Amino acid sequence: MTIKRLFIANRGEIALRVLRTAHAMGIATVLGVSEADRTSLPARLAGAIAVLGPGPSPQSYLAIDRVVAAAVEHGCDAVHPGYGFLSENAAFARAVAEAGMIFVGPAVQTLEGMGDKLAARALALAAGLPVLPGGAAETAQDVAARAQETGYPLLLKAVAGGGGKGMRRVDRAEDLDAALAMARAEAQASFGNPAVYVERFVARGRHVEVQILGDGTHAIHLGTRDCSIQRRFQKLVEEAPAPAMPDAARAAIEDAAVRLARHIAYRGAGTAEFLVDADDFSFYFLELNARIQVEHPVTEAITGVDLVEQQLLVAMGHPLRLTQAMVRPHGHAIEVRVNAEDPDADFRPAPGVVARAAWPAGPGIRVDSHIANGGEVPPFYDSLLGKLIVHGATREQAVARMAAALQHLRIDGLPTTAPLHRRILADPRFVAGGVDTGFLAGLNLTGSNP
Amino acid sequence: MTIKRLFIANRGEIALRVLRTAHAMGIATVLGVSEADRTSLPARLAGAIAVLGPGPSPQSYLAIDRVVAAAVEHGCDAVHPGYGFLSENAAFARAVAEAGMIFVGPAVQTLEGMGDKLAARALALAAGLPVLPGGAAETAQDVAARAQETGYPLLLKAVAGGGGKGMRRVDRAEDLDAALAMARAEAQASFGNPAVYVERFVARGRHVEVQILGDGTHAIHLGTRDCSIQRRFQKLVEEAPAPAMPDAARAAIEDAAVRLARHIAYRGAGTAEFLVDADDFSFYFLELNARIQVEHPVTEAITGVDLVEQQLLVAMGHPLRLTQAMVRPHGHAIEVRVNAEDPDADFRPAPGVVARAAWPAGPGIRVDSHIANGGEVPPFYDSLLGKLIVHGATREQAVARMAAALQHLRIDGLPTTAPLHRRILADPRFVAGGVDTGFLAGLNLTGSNP
Repeated sequence: MTIKRLFIANRGEIALRVLRTAHAMGIATVLGVSEADRTSLPARLAGAIAVLGPGPSPQSYLAIDRVVAAAVEHGCDAVHPGYGFLSENAAFARAVAEAGMIFVGPAVQTLEGMGDKLAARALALAAGLPVLPGGAAETAQDVAARAQETGYPLLLKAVAGGGGKGMRRVDRAEDLDAALAMARAEAQASFGNPAVYVERFVARGRHVEVQILGDGTHAIHLGTRDCSIQRRFQKLVEEAPAPAMPDAARAAIEDAAVRLARHIAYRGAGTAEFLVDADDFSFYFLELNARIQVEHPVTEAITGVDLVEQQLLVAMGHPLRLTQAMVRPHGHAIEVRVNAEDPDADFRPAPGVVARAAWPAGPGIRVDSHIANGGEVPPFYDSLLGKLIVHGATREQAVARMAAALQHLRIDGLPTTAPLHRRILADPRFVAGGVDTGFLAGLNLTGSNP
Repeated sequence: MTIKRLFIANRGEIALRVLRTAHAMGIATVLGVSEADRTSLPARLAGAIAVLGPGPSPQSYLAIDRVVAAAVEHGCDAVHPGYGFLSENAAFARAVAEAGMIFVGPAVQTLEGMGDKLAARALALAAGLPVLPGGAAETAQDVAARAQETGYPLLLKAVAGGGGKGMRRVDRAEDLDAALAMARAEAQASFGNPAVYVERFVARGRHVEVQILGDGTHAIHLGTRDCSIQRRFQKLVEEAPAPAMPDAARAAIEDAAVRLARHIAYRGAGTAEFLVDADDFSFYFLELNARIQVEHPVTEAITGVDLVEQQLLVAMGHPLRLTQAMVRPHGHAIEVRVNAEDPDADFRPAPGVVARAAWPAGPGIRVDSHIANGGEVPPFYDSLLGKLIVHGATREQAVARMAAALQHLRIDGLPTTAPLHRRILADPRFVAGGVDTGFLAGLNLTGSNP
């Protein structure tokens, strides 16, 4: 089974990322684009483009029928979904397979199991992984009963959730009713499913995740990433490996991720996310993202492995050529997400036109951006302009390189998160390493100095 | 001794390269620019600029007095000369020191010794390195006498030479007189010194060089680079380590380079160049370049060492922190030089304006370019638009990545060497590895297909 012509069902930097590796492997590419993306850099570099529909995602990047029809029409034998959009949509994966094409991702059953956060918790428990105390709850009475186990504060989370939507922190029993109503309403609006569940809230939690690779039979890990620097549950800065953590703690988390991957016979690239207690390094499984992750380049930097290449090889039916012993991470890598957002308007997405851009370069520096030379940022999609990734022999060197690289980043025409990143990189707590997810909330983000 | 403010006495990609590392180390920068370079990307990113004079180099980048005066005037405590221009000029290094500043490079005596190719040969011989049979020759009679030792064909080379100027191949005794007259005239015109010397011509020679680092007391090497793909003695493609060569041969060349560096108490980054017989791997010292080399990024890619940082640390008087055991190269790296040259006009430099540029990116890809986003290419200087560097776990992967990366390189507005590089990367002899310096001459370069 080989892939000769790959349909890329995504846009922006990840579309560019996938088509670059596809071309390096001698695979022809067809890029599905909305009318808003017809002249984007990935559209210019793709072997061919297929216009899916108007700008808004429901009529283009989320329109399963149109994407599958376009891929079939262009004679593609496989579909890469990138991240976001349809990447974890089991119905899409099934439609791709039913049209006789390879879905570059895990099995349909895996997507179904991991898309339901309560089902994923149950699978993790069955694989022997620790999960946070909690569980399903439909009524305020249910939540109050769970609270016996979790204590306050607790978190309400959407069962079908993702991206922080339908998520509420509850500090006291008397706030329960209102919070539950809001979480259920938000979950219904975002995912068409009002179900929520309860989870213990960890005061000083770190977000640590493990990159896994599987071929359905074997599974390995490619080390940890720390993504604790988040705003509204959205990652902003990621690094690999997770810093300021005993080796034994890191190894225990990596082992847990591989155990889960083997338990569910995972196929493809995936990420097991954990909450780690910043004080005692106890850890709890959160969820498994069954796709390539935005922050995958930091893992590529320290391992030298092209994760998209691995995805495509496994999708073609090749057994994993990598063994755990062959993965020998070296050095430290950091990524910052440069978004078009307005720091003076509560970091609202700020679409528009990038008049001119100058990204840094040099030893250990990588830039993944679809607007590397400027271009339009349509209002329909996320506000990611590009990712700046640095690699150093040590974390200290990586931090210094990132700080210097950010000095050399120029994006003209739009407000961006670059000034915020400069502040983070200069913060002694970040420089020391190991901050928890409350870090950004503790920064005074108004009146940012560029 | 620390460097607080560094004057960069260069332009183009190497100016950008140096100022990036300087900023990463917390060193302020002042960039000397000609009037033609006032709005270049390095000029925009430098801490300050000092206009040296009009476009032509003799009135700007080669004007020792102006450069030194500008550095003093801006309160700089050190000068980085980059490559080319004044980088190996002993008089310049002396003037910098006499003005109380640090010259980021080797000792003045080293520059004097290595600038005279016959003196360099003698030093290498004294250090126990093999050199090609040959020696000084003023008259045709002298050359004929040397030819007893070297045989035909032989090479005439300028004693003060560099960059292939004043170099002539002589195939038969009857051509001697004419060739000698031309070589001496060219040497006089290029270097103000007509002296030439004779060297055996090796039919299937490879250009292999060794990166060295020294602090005046200790010296180490950072492995080999192969730069055999040359046109008119100008390198076009470089890789590290040198491919298709027994480990023992590589080790012998590396040892020889370190022996020479120790013999002359070398300080800073330097490159020992060797001619290697493609058939039996015997090798001969050619010259030592006492500066950073254009192709240094391939060494950075496989070692993770920032060579400009090492230059600056040594210049500040720090002993080398790296030991030979700490340098553990991994993988393979390839660099191509993208020049503004017209393949339909015998690759004449083609200055002008880069209207738009799209450089590749992704795992293992690095771009060093001062016109990454377009800009002007003035007629006064070399035609280098930028360097594309790839790193892979194996040479096979690096070749595949470079071939794919070149597909994604778009430079609009000027003819470039990119089409030539695509042909080289697709050539089975290059893919196999270990071509000799005759490779490019053997390609039919007319009618290049883009």
